[in-house]
Amino acid sequence: MIEVIKYPEKALWLALTTRASVLTSAIQKTVVTIVESVQSLGDQALFDYTLQFDQVKLERLTVGEEEFKSAKNLIGFSQMEAIKLAKRNIEKFHAAFCEQPQKIETTKGVFCWRDSRPIERVGLYIPGGSAPLFSSVLMLGIPALLAGCKEIILCTPPNKEGKVDPLILYTAELLGIKNIFKVGGAQAVGAMAYGTESITKVDKIFGPGNQYVTLAKMLVQMDGIAIDMPAGPSEVLVVADRTSNAKYVASDLLAQAEHGEDSQVILLSNDLSIIERINQEIKVQLESLPRQLIVKKALQNSRAILLENIDQCIEFSNCYAPEHLILAFNNSASYEAKIQNAGSVFFGRYSCESIGDYASGTNHTLPTGGFAKSYSGVSVDSFVKKVTFQHVTRGGFLNIGKSVEVMAEAEHLVAHKQSISLRLNDLIND
Amino acid sequence: MIEVIKYPEKALWLALTTRASVLTSAIQKTVVTIVESVQSLGDQALFDYTLQFDQVKLERLTVGEEEFKSAKNLIGFSQMEAIKLAKRNIEKFHAAFCEQPQKIETTKGVFCWRDSRPIERVGLYIPGGSAPLFSSVLMLGIPALLAGCKEIILCTPPNKEGKVDPLILYTAELLGIKNIFKVGGAQAVGAMAYGTESITKVDKIFGPGNQYVTLAKMLVQMDGIAIDMPAGPSEVLVVADRTSNAKYVASDLLAQAEHGEDSQVILLSNDLSIIERINQEIKVQLESLPRQLIVKKALQNSRAILLENIDQCIEFSNCYAPEHLILAFNNSASYEAKIQNAGSVFFGRYSCESIGDYASGTNHTLPTGGFAKSYSGVSVDSFVKKVTFQHVTRGGFLNIGKSVEVMAEAEHLVAHKQSISLRLNDLIND
Repeated sequence: MIEVIKYPEKALWLALTTRASVLTSAIQKTVVTIVESVQSLGDQALFDYTLQFDQVKLERLTVGEEEFKSAKNLIGFSQMEAIKLAKRNIEKFHAAFCEQPQKIETTKGVFCWRDSRPIERVGLYIPGGSAPLFSSVLMLGIPALLAGCKEIILCTPPNKEGKVDPLILYTAELLGIKNIFKVGGAQAVGAMAYGTESITKVDKIFGPGNQYVTLAKMLVQMDGIAIDMPAGPSEVLVVADRTSNAKYVASDLLAQAEHGEDSQVILLSNDLSIIERINQEIKVQLESLPRQLIVKKALQNSRAILLENIDQCIEFSNCYAPEHLILAFNNSASYEAKIQNAGSVFFGRYSCESIGDYASGTNHTLPTGGFAKSYSGVSVDSFVKKVTFQHVTRGGFLNIGKSVEVMAEAEHLVAHKQSISLRLNDLIND
Repeated sequence: MIEVIKYPEKALWLALTTRASVLTSAIQKTVVTIVESVQSLGDQALFDYTLQFDQVKLERLTVGEEEFKSAKNLIGFSQMEAIKLAKRNIEKFHAAFCEQPQKIETTKGVFCWRDSRPIERVGLYIPGGSAPLFSSVLMLGIPALLAGCKEIILCTPPNKEGKVDPLILYTAELLGIKNIFKVGGAQAVGAMAYGTESITKVDKIFGPGNQYVTLAKMLVQMDGIAIDMPAGPSEVLVVADRTSNAKYVASDLLAQAEHGEDSQVILLSNDLSIIERINQEIKVQLESLPRQLIVKKALQNSRAILLENIDQCIEFSNCYAPEHLILAFNNSASYEAKIQNAGSVFFGRYSCESIGDYASGTNHTLPTGGFAKSYSGVSVDSFVKKVTFQHVTRGGFLNIGKSVEVMAEAEHLVAHKQSISLRLNDLIND
């Protein structure tokens, strides 16, 4: 059951958007030590930390051909087909946002354009632990490949037998990603940020992870290594009204809650009876879930809020800036223009979050913790730089040179002015 | 004169791409103290630091109507016209990259799309000091306005009379930016990151600045405030051959060098005689420059490198990843496709950096220090988030639901699977 808050005053809204606090100061020292050790000791530190944290003594960090082969034999046909369908949809959606170059003549003779260039070396972090998140391999690998990144490195912690989960290997191989390293946690981030004997230093690091991974990413970012985005616990905000299906909404809230104890679900409605029915459904459905303890903890961080009307619900949602926003009522797409801050948005009763997590085609690597106010989810854009180009003809130079001279002088940049004057003189005396 | 290095072995290239080191550890404590004071004391800290660092006791932080009015009276007609020309070109170029939404049907009945939303509150930092960088007001303000940001705040240090430079005020007013605060340095970054009585907390902070400003931006980024990019000293890499104009190239190198002692210029060529002529020209032109000491220091950080051919020059440039890349020779645009890492690129003898700094239309806020490997320059993209949307019909759900069920199960996410199964059951029994 989720706590219900009725008609809170606007002055209280900000407080109602707070997430479960993440205390990073307690682990800061550990993470700094790990990252620094990897930086100074290289592979040896990776072997040592893998023994310490993953309880396995590795012979080597890479995945051999044999392991790839036997992975394939462990995957069922329906799993293969499902992964291929997801791959197709994700490719189709992401490919649509590969920018085409466009040349603009800003003044006669002054041509400016912009074009994408892949980030050459990227590192993808895929968590291991309790679940093999092969879906994240799709979500990070596909845009990296569409962008044309030359070197794609994947780090993921090994299991106690020193193996990588077969589904992760199958998915990576399906995409053509073969540089897979058996290393997890903050040590994986350190390795990709600074390089070791086995692992190439990358230009940008992507991927979800626990607090240690997240903090390590923030630390290496201070050193100028780009990262996808600051990450925090996952979250969903659902807006429901009397046309919503209580059973479906409850299942979406529970799906979010099973991610972790620190997950948060927010339910907004203009109708108390649907909130009550959804809460009732949560109670029923919760019974059959294996991760009950996790879900119950997450629901304690969560809240249902009764508001005046749907417009107010959208206003609250913009204030909260959810990672996932589900508008689970009829004709909800008419509210699209009012949505300001959200990672990914789902309209109607069949557009549930799980669909977007795996296979609709949108990315599931999204800004959490309110970062949807300023960050976008992962896309091909995340794996490229946009480089600008300009070509100014003699005529173009004559058209704007004098103005540049005036501005450079006004900024007291005499050498800037000089670079224009020299050319203008030659052109005028030509 | 720039030191000339002839045919360095490839093994030495990496060392030749190093920038003048920026020692931030020495100022870290100061910056942390400033930012924390602003966070806890608000406006009072801003008044105190302005007295301490800018040597002026302010009555208020904002710019009044009177000051805007008298600023306008101090600007010459040619300055106004030049600024308006630059504004038009920058607007024209940047407007071309406002993304239009595009709906993709990834599987029949599964509709996904993406649309931009402005970052609601943004803060622009404009350095004061020796030069009034009104051009940066254009470069940050125009994309912010095109993006549709609701609240645009501009911070810039006051002069000793407690005024903001008239050119900065004129340019800001021309764009319609009226929220200008007389506060500079790390304290301005702290104020925009956390908010004070007078200054609204923003979602993202933009703009160039000295070491203090840069470090403050990196620190608040650890706290989840987005920033435009990590910034360092400015730099240019010029590739010249026997078709280049030595006088022009020298003037471009000097223009870059006058930015600051820590600026760096790199000259690459396949022809020793042009390098020597350019060096000769530098000597001559340097005589007439007022910032000689700064320029000479910057040239000490700089190098001219003789390589085998133009292809090798481009290869070195990709390794260096310059903020500005000038290909100052005939038919240089044919090398476009080979350029991988650069902020902004200039083709031919009339496309000099000053043109791009002020008025060609491209942005001059660009990644330095090798960050062009992973970061883009500022554009409208920097002021928006790309939000993804999806709408799945009943038919669409039937087309992909089963696959999502299989994948959720494979990731051991039972509640995710359940959210699909409930709906599939209803649809199949419908």
